[in-house]
Order: sequence, then structure tokens, then C-alpha cells
Amino acid sequence: MVVETGQVDRVRAGVARPATSDGARPDGGWPDDIRRRVRDHVDATVRRRCAEHVHSMQGAEFVSGVLADFVRRGKYVRSMFGYLGWRAAAPDSPAALEAVAGLELLHAFALLQDDVMDGSLLRRGRPTVHVQLATWHRGQGMSGCSDRFGESGAVLLGDLCLVWAEQAMRESGLPRPVLDRGWPRYDAMRSELAVGQFADLLNEARRIPSLDEVMDVLRRKSGNYTVRRPLELGAAMAGADDELLGLLGDYGTMVGEAFQMRDDVLGVFGTDETGKPTGDDLAERKATSLVVLARELAGPATRATLDALLHGGPDEPVDVVAARALIESTGARRRIEELISTRVQGALRLVDGAVADGRLAEDVAGVLRGMAVRCADRSS
Amino acid sequence: MVVETGQVDRVRAGVARPATSDGARPDGGWPDDIRRRVRDHVDATVRRRCAEHVHSMQGAEFVSGVLADFVRRGKYVRSMFGYLGWRAAAPDSPAALEAVAGLELLHAFALLQDDVMDGSLLRRGRPTVHVQLATWHRGQGMSGCSDRFGESGAVLLGDLCLVWAEQAMRESGLPRPVLDRGWPRYDAMRSELAVGQFADLLNEARRIPSLDEVMDVLRRKSGNYTVRRPLELGAAMAGADDELLGLLGDYGTMVGEAFQMRDDVLGVFGTDETGKPTGDDLAERKATSLVVLARELAGPATRATLDALLHGGPDEPVDVVAARALIESTGARRRIEELISTRVQGALRLVDGAVADGRLAEDVAGVLRGMAVRCADRSS
Repeated sequence: MVVETGQVDRVRAGVARPATSDGARPDGGWPDDIRRRVRDHVDATVRRRCAEHVHSMQGAEFVSGVLADFVRRGKYVRSMFGYLGWRAAAPDSPAALEAVAGLELLHAFALLQDDVMDGSLLRRGRPTVHVQLATWHRGQGMSGCSDRFGESGAVLLGDLCLVWAEQAMRESGLPRPVLDRGWPRYDAMRSELAVGQFADLLNEARRIPSLDEVMDVLRRKSGNYTVRRPLELGAAMAGADDELLGLLGDYGTMVGEAFQMRDDVLGVFGTDETGKPTGDDLAERKATSLVVLARELAGPATRATLDALLHGGPDEPVDVVAARALIESTGARRRIEELISTRVQGALRLVDGAVADGRLAEDVAGVLRGMAVRCADRSS
Repeated sequence: MVVETGQVDRVRAGVARPATSDGARPDGGWPDDIRRRVRDHVDATVRRRCAEHVHSMQGAEFVSGVLADFVRRGKYVRSMFGYLGWRAAAPDSPAALEAVAGLELLHAFALLQDDVMDGSLLRRGRPTVHVQLATWHRGQGMSGCSDRFGESGAVLLGDLCLVWAEQAMRESGLPRPVLDRGWPRYDAMRSELAVGQFADLLNEARRIPSLDEVMDVLRRKSGNYTVRRPLELGAAMAGADDELLGLLGDYGTMVGEAFQMRDDVLGVFGTDETGKPTGDDLAERKATSLVVLARELAGPATRATLDALLHGGPDEPVDVVAARALIESTGARRRIEELISTRVQGALRLVDGAVADGRLAEDVAGVLRGMAVRCADRSS
């Protein structure tokens, strides 16, 4: 994990501490190592499971390849937080790493199915899995609706990932009492994930939810699922006491909300690898925190124009450039940046306090700081 | 469970033994009792989980009600076989019953998502869950595509059932070593289920698979998942030896194939509650065992007519009456009935042999016999 100084400056000066006398980064460099170990483990798991279950199916090689490639291209944020939670209360453990590696499969499940439901075309720099499956189906000259096949296939691959995620926990080699401390949180996270997506569909269906409603979904889908729940899961399995769990929970809520709000900003103002504006959330007419806040801050005339831009007929493409300008003009972007910054600063203060109290070791604290900044300030 | 004598006669004379001197049925009447206990437990589980996770969502009461109603209306075949497997090797156990009750949630997951993928309109005598959700969405005057909302919502409810099914096993109260004997089979069943549905999509996409391919999918989706895997799961958890597991596995393969072939016959020749012909599989152009066998038995002219009937454009409804007559004329229905009968007779012989050898108690054997007949000879 590389925290660029420029990014850090934008959030809070003084976070990026000078390299230690032996030249190592203050986080000891372990996130990159952990990420690589998680990635290799998840990759091997997906290939083994596919070889075991998918092999006899027509197109097995293609389907397995698509799934393995999709999983490998993740950012590994959730497993990193899961492992950080573990390390906040216990030493390095390959078994714990395998257990939290399953979170990447849980995340793959959520993305595979959400992308079908949202009709998303791109993910992780590639066509979404349902699009890849549909293209393959079409190329094979098979009968039936290729889009439908792609969607059903992606949902089923998602189901497999959901099953294999749970197996990764159970078969990690962690002793029963350790796992038993994790299951209630793991189960709550899984149900919350599906219910959060359901609530999201309803928000879209109702078209104009309140900011509170959007923040509630955002908290469930990201504040909890991306940061807080993985952290708590790892820490609970490691036997963290309530005080440490509470600390990590508060950090997780703040960083998770910042993560999702950054997502919402990128969904409107983001650019692709070539620097081309994307505006995916606008094109999909998503009621994200940024869009809803813009509506709330806008005067009646601006709001009416924005609504007209975003709520045209399903066949009318959204004028992304005009919508961006309008949202910018309401001050919503600046306000969201403030909200993000407030959360990251709060998270960093929590970490500093915990180090001062001796509740967090400096190596773990360093990574928590870096991850907070990275989550809030990423460009993709 | 009531086995009607007329049904039994059609399969094998002499199965329905006379009532014992105290008037009790030879199976002691326990299947009905078990089914009621499973149903009550699953119903309570669904309501508790919904109260825990779904409560805060808009429309929570409606969505929870749809799911609970859907689950309650099942036939409870899989949990019955799971419990039969347990009882073949161990005495009555409320914890084991709770563990296998989870199979009904696993089945609910499969049906909810399969019905979306297959575009099915009816299930368990009601509109399918995705249709109910779409109708509700439309009735609420929500924006966005109601059909799309219904499909996504049903997939998500399926995900929740998949998660809750696994929790039902884990939280059943069965000791760890008992569960550990079950997990490998449970996990294999879950992956096999999703892969089987994927293979099914490919069969549909290719339009004309061979009978061998259809039978392979049929075995994975039913021979294994409806009868064999649940039986083996229950028996393995109860500590059955390899000989008993092998016996139940063979019984399960035969009865499972018979179950699915009966499904395929009903999908072409079945009638609804009012006696009206349905021919669902024909309308959906499914390449079932019956349809594929008809093609293989047909002469070139009949095959060409059948293909023309079944493979029209997606907007042309299939002439169900003509297709039924043509399939009947090939002798495929009679042949499938023979195949079903062969399997049930084989299963009954296995059970008789096991009783004679003292490997199965008569009460369990009686229920296994009754279930074999019931699976092969049901009318819905």
C-alpha cells in the first residue's frame, strides 16, 4: 500500500510520518505483503473450487477464467481491514489470513449480482462478468437471449462465491472458539449486505430519497460492510475486548462512510484510465449521497433543472456534462469533501488516541492511518 | 405422508402393507409429524430472521410475508430425506431435525433464483415471488422497471435463504464432530446446485442436448440434490458407516431420477388445480428428459415437426396441444414411465434387502418405501 504525500496533505497534514532511520516506511511495509498473500490464497481457492465443481460443464475453462480474473483484480480492501482487525489484537497468523481472505469472495458475490441488478457495464477496468458471459454466449452462436444468459450466469457465479466465502472461514484452520467469536458478525454482515442492496433498489425505485435514507443505505452497504464489519470480524476472532471493538467500530463507521462518499464523488466526477469523464452514477440515475445533497442544497429552479436532467425517460441518455456542472454549482461537491474530510480526521484522531493510551501498537496504527487516507482519497 | 393404494398399485403391488393390529400405519405416522415440526421450525426461522434484518426496510412487512408464505408452501421433500438419512443411523433428535430443516431454505434459494432465470410465472400454486414483488412495485406507483425490481428482489431473497440455510445447520445445536461429518456433503451439494443450474442454462442455450446430457443435469439437480444428498447428509451426520451410506446413495440416485422424470412428465402432460393442461416446460421450450427422448425416438418427419413446434421465434407461443400429441405419438411418455418404474422398483428392492439383512429398521424402511412411491407418482 502506497500513501502518496499529496493525497495525505489534502486530508490532514502530518499523517505521513518520515521514514524510520533504517529507511522502512512507518507501517513496516506489511500491507503490500498481506495483500499479495491474500490475493494468492483467494486465487488458488477459486481455481481449486472451479476445478472441483465447474470442470465438467461446457465452457468450464472460459467461465472459470472469467471468475478467477475478476476476483484477482480486486482492491482487497475488505480482507485488509479484516486482517487489520485481527492484528489489532493478535499476532500474525496464516489461518486468520485465510479466514479473512474469504471476505474477497463475499465481496465478489455482492459485485457480481449488484452489477446485474444495476445493469452496470464496467467493473475493475473490464466489462462486467455478465457482459463477458453474454458476449461469449453470442460468439458461440448459442440460441436464446445472450444478455439473459449473461445475467443468470453472473448471479450463479455470485452464489458460488457466497458459498465458497463461508467455506474459506470455516476451513481456515482457526480453532472452533475463535471462529465462534466471528460467526455472529459474519452472518450479520451477509444478511445486511443483501438487505442493503434490496433497500438500494427501493431507493432507486422511489427515485428521490432523502439524504438520511441514502446515508442509512450507505452506512449499511459500506460503513459496515467495507470497513467496520471486516475490522470487527477480525478483531472479535482475535479476542479483542469491548473497548478495542468499540474503537475499531467507530473508526470503521467513519472510514466506511468516507469510502462510500468518495465512491459517490467518483461516480459523478470520476474519469476513466484515459482521463475521460465517466459519470457512471449519473448515467444510471443513481440517487447517491452527492446527487441527493445537490438536490437538497439547490434552489427550486436548479432543482427542477437537475430533476429534468436526471429523470428523463429510460431511453433518453442523461446529459452527464450538464448534470455535473449543475451539481458543482450547488456546492454539494465541496460539502461532500468536507464530510469526507471530517470523517477521516475523526478516524485519525481515534487511532492517535489509542496509540497514546497503549491500546494499539504503532505498526497496526500506521496501517490504519494509511488505509483511512487511502479509502477516502483514492481515484478509482 | 399419505401413500394412496392406487398409486402404489401402479408402481409395485404389495408395497402398501396392511395396517398393524393397533390400526397405525406401518410407518408409524411419523412423516406427517416430522413435516409439521420442520415446517414450524423453518417458518419461525424465516420470521425471526426477517424481523432481525428486513424490518427497517420500506415494504418490510410485505416482503417478509411473501417470503414466509413461499417457504411455508413447500413439500418438504428434502428435509424429509435429510431426516430419514439421520434416522437410518440414529434415534430421533430435535437438533438434527433443525439442521436438516435448513435444506428447505436452501431449496427456497434455488427456486427463487431459478424461477427468475427461467422466467417462470407460477410456483407452489401462486405467482412466483419475482412476479409478486413486481406487482407490488407497480401497485405502489414506484418509478423504474417493476419486472426488473421483482427479479432483483427475488434474487436477493434467495441469497438471504442461502445464508440462513447454512446458519440453520451451524446453529442447530448438533455437536461439532457431528456437523463436521456433514459439511463436506453440504458444501458439495450447494456448489453442485449452482453449477447444475448453470449447465441447465447452457442446455437451454444450445437448444438440443443429448439425452445423456439431460440425464447428467437431471442427476446433479435432482438425483443428487432432492434425494441423494439430503439422505447422505443426514446419515453422515448420524455416523452411518460406508455400507449404509452406499445403500442410501443408491436409493437416492434412483428415487431422485424418478422424481425429476416425473417432474418432466408433469411439465408436459400436467394439469393445474382445475384440471386445465399446463405444459409449462413446452411453453418455456425446456429440453427436458421427455422432450429430448421424444426427439430421439421420433422418425425424421415427426422430429422435424416437433422441432418446428418447439423452436419458433421467442414471440411465437408454442402450440402446447400439438406438441403433447406429437410427443405422445413417439412413445416417449410410455418409455419415461418405464424408466421411472424401473428406478422405483430398484429402490424398493434395495430397501427390502436392507431390512432382510438387518441394516435398516422397519420403521425407517417403511417411510423410505412410501417416499419412493410418492416421489415417483405425485400429481404436482
